[in-house]
Amino acid sequence: GDVAFFQRLMPGRVVTGEEEVKPFNVDWLKSVRGCSQLVLKPQTTAEVSEVLRYCHERNLAVNPQGGNTGLVGGSVPVFDEIILSTALMDRIISFDKVSGILVCQAGCVLERLNEYLEEQGFIMPLDLGAKGSCHIGGNVATNAGGLRLLRYGSLRGTVLGLEVVLADGSALDCLGSLRKDNTGYDLKQLFIGSEGTLGVITAVSILCPQKPKAVNLAFLGCQSFAKVLETFTTCRAMLGEILSAYEFMDEKCMQLVESHLKLSNPVTDSPFYVLIETSGSNSTHDEEKLNNFLEQAMASGLVTDGTVATDDKKIKVLWSLRERITEALTHDGYVYKYDLSLPVGKLYDLVTDMRARLGHSAKNVVGYGHLGDGNLHLNITAESYSHSLLDAIEPFVYEWTASCSGSISAEHGLGFKKKQFIQYSKPHEAVVLMQRLKAMLDPRGILNPYKTLPWAP
Amino acid sequence: GDVAFFQRLMPGRVVTGEEEVKPFNVDWLKSVRGCSQLVLKPQTTAEVSEVLRYCHERNLAVNPQGGNTGLVGGSVPVFDEIILSTALMDRIISFDKVSGILVCQAGCVLERLNEYLEEQGFIMPLDLGAKGSCHIGGNVATNAGGLRLLRYGSLRGTVLGLEVVLADGSALDCLGSLRKDNTGYDLKQLFIGSEGTLGVITAVSILCPQKPKAVNLAFLGCQSFAKVLETFTTCRAMLGEILSAYEFMDEKCMQLVESHLKLSNPVTDSPFYVLIETSGSNSTHDEEKLNNFLEQAMASGLVTDGTVATDDKKIKVLWSLRERITEALTHDGYVYKYDLSLPVGKLYDLVTDMRARLGHSAKNVVGYGHLGDGNLHLNITAESYSHSLLDAIEPFVYEWTASCSGSISAEHGLGFKKKQFIQYSKPHEAVVLMQRLKAMLDPRGILNPYKTLPWAP
Repeated sequence: GDVAFFQRLMPGRVVTGEEEVKPFNVDWLKSVRGCSQLVLKPQTTAEVSEVLRYCHERNLAVNPQGGNTGLVGGSVPVFDEIILSTALMDRIISFDKVSGILVCQAGCVLERLNEYLEEQGFIMPLDLGAKGSCHIGGNVATNAGGLRLLRYGSLRGTVLGLEVVLADGSALDCLGSLRKDNTGYDLKQLFIGSEGTLGVITAVSILCPQKPKAVNLAFLGCQSFAKVLETFTTCRAMLGEILSAYEFMDEKCMQLVESHLKLSNPVTDSPFYVLIETSGSNSTHDEEKLNNFLEQAMASGLVTDGTVATDDKKIKVLWSLRERITEALTHDGYVYKYDLSLPVGKLYDLVTDMRARLGHSAKNVVGYGHLGDGNLHLNITAESYSHSLLDAIEPFVYEWTASCSGSISAEHGLGFKKKQFIQYSKPHEAVVLMQRLKAMLDPRGILNPYKTLPWAP
Repeated sequence: GDVAFFQRLMPGRVVTGEEEVKPFNVDWLKSVRGCSQLVLKPQTTAEVSEVLRYCHERNLAVNPQGGNTGLVGGSVPVFDEIILSTALMDRIISFDKVSGILVCQAGCVLERLNEYLEEQGFIMPLDLGAKGSCHIGGNVATNAGGLRLLRYGSLRGTVLGLEVVLADGSALDCLGSLRKDNTGYDLKQLFIGSEGTLGVITAVSILCPQKPKAVNLAFLGCQSFAKVLETFTTCRAMLGEILSAYEFMDEKCMQLVESHLKLSNPVTDSPFYVLIETSGSNSTHDEEKLNNFLEQAMASGLVTDGTVATDDKKIKVLWSLRERITEALTHDGYVYKYDLSLPVGKLYDLVTDMRARLGHSAKNVVGYGHLGDGNLHLNITAESYSHSLLDAIEPFVYEWTASCSGSISAEHGLGFKKKQFIQYSKPHEAVVLMQRLKAMLDPRGILNPYKTLPWAP
């Protein structure tokens, strides 16, 4: 049967048995669960091709899976799809120190790539909380944003090439390593952010920035969201090209990381906190810029308390206050998660409105995120899942977002959980065109089915 | 007939008559000429929709045209296609000073947009020699690179949204203004760089960087291409985040701008010249970084002579030495133009090889370009066009490029002149997939026919 075929194709790398397959069936948040009975672990692009050719012929659905750190149920099966894991495709193919271009297989773990690059004086152009387990192929397939987007831009600019296996098993080699290439349509863009529904990414070519010689972090307390905004415009002007992150979190977030993770607040309790990172090539210049900014921010009352870190260890400690909010939330009960792009000025109004709307029916309503990119992470916790609470949140949150032309998924993607809400951010004609692209590239619908797009009529 | 229909649709904005239409039929280089008898100048997206709906129904071919500054014959008709000019679609729709996001119609001239932004403390993320006449819609349709790509990245990252009219006249609204939006496939990427063959771009939303407070320019002489390369790695390390351009030109280029344009060489005659621009937020810091670099470059013999500019006027004079090479070449005779992406280390070998290969059959063989992006502009001049000289150049230049996995068109696109060479940079399966995309989006083939892709079998 099918299993025997795969065992012949990749002996010892076919996982069966309920217990063994279970971790691949459940997402990181434990919010969705599939019932696949088969996990395949190819090592090469040729093997991925063989798998898809077979599945295409026999009409077998396939769920591509990287580090399984997605937050919208895109990385686990809905029913019994065959799970195609990139876990063993973790080979670095090449790195060029002159151009800073890395070529690697899709299953390389982001943090491992970053460590490899740091030894050579470079860094990955993206960084996110899940770095310890997420795969670069999954990052590209979901167009991951994260903490460095403000500085190094999106993967649509930094990814220079991709190798992709299409639904019928044919391999598409767009693995170029050129900063500029205007020969025909840029096919790789089709696969960036399409969540494994149009093809399986097997290798990535990516442009990596030089490792900054100096990194500074400031963790500051602000008395209002208006001050958070003004602090942003002030620091953008004064820090200019060395600003590499501007993150914010509200006091509820701080309470959650304090109570659930036993982290301690490094500054006086405040309604809002901001985390400002600078990355530059001259530590004297950078510290001078940062100090000038901090003096002005304190003197004008934008900021009421703050601490600065220049050494790696303290920087990590301060970053963890922001990066571990997601983890702290999972300890607080059932979590309703929203990842929204909104006009920066209105970003926090949604949190306030939601808090007022839900009252005591929610345990906590918290807001944090990448303010510099206009990206709010709105999270609502309750003792347990409740349908009536969900009805109070949705579609309100989507209507609110659509009313100011925001995006109902800034960086998490649509996956299984959000696909039916796409019309809040995209017009009907756009969704129809997406469905036509899907039908063209995957006519039998075997690739990550039930994800990203609502059913075509 | 057709003309009467268009005259009713847009009275006074329909151009007929051989003399009136002529400038729209000929490209900037005067290298290709169509024989269209009709130019349409819509002002609104609705009018573009009406035009395409009519043309689609009646199977009339359409050539979208912006500033007509393209270098590969993509912007003029091949036969008698109707020319759809964006010249009157030059309205700025909105600009947000907090986010730096500009929304405007496709026909806005790049330089005019930049002037508008500078008044508000921002700049366009791209700059190119043709800025005085090129349209932003054409820039996006051709994925223009230019002088600021090194610093601000490609249009695939900075363009946030597009409004596009498809071949059948339906308008596709992807004109979002969000830095992050992962809701479904990123359709706008299909139209960036597709040279008007998949849809007509009618409006653009683009992220603009803050205007740098300090700009410095260094114009330096180098004794060899090896020194040009070493100067690049040295300045990248020492200037870091403030480096905004690294351009090079050979001595032949300098001789051409001196003799044809009467510009004067600001430094001692040298085999190579490099132009280094810094852009930053603190003039004291930037000058210190630049001076440290220059001292080291002079002391170690990387650079033998140089001049630095900090005021606008001298900066413009120095930039014009590099920016006006294209113009100087047109005065030198017939020009064979090549725009290649190559591994930085081998970039100039092609110029040397070509010079040796052609000997006295060419007038001048010159090399210049965006070294920081691995982008060489190779130009060959002769008293007049000669088929035998062309045969000596092609396919040699494409084979040479393909042998080191370069791109046969880094930023100019394929247009009419280069489409038959796409296979030197893209595998067969990729070209087939491009043709399927074309057939899906423009089934009757009315949009910019005979461009970008070779005929489908």
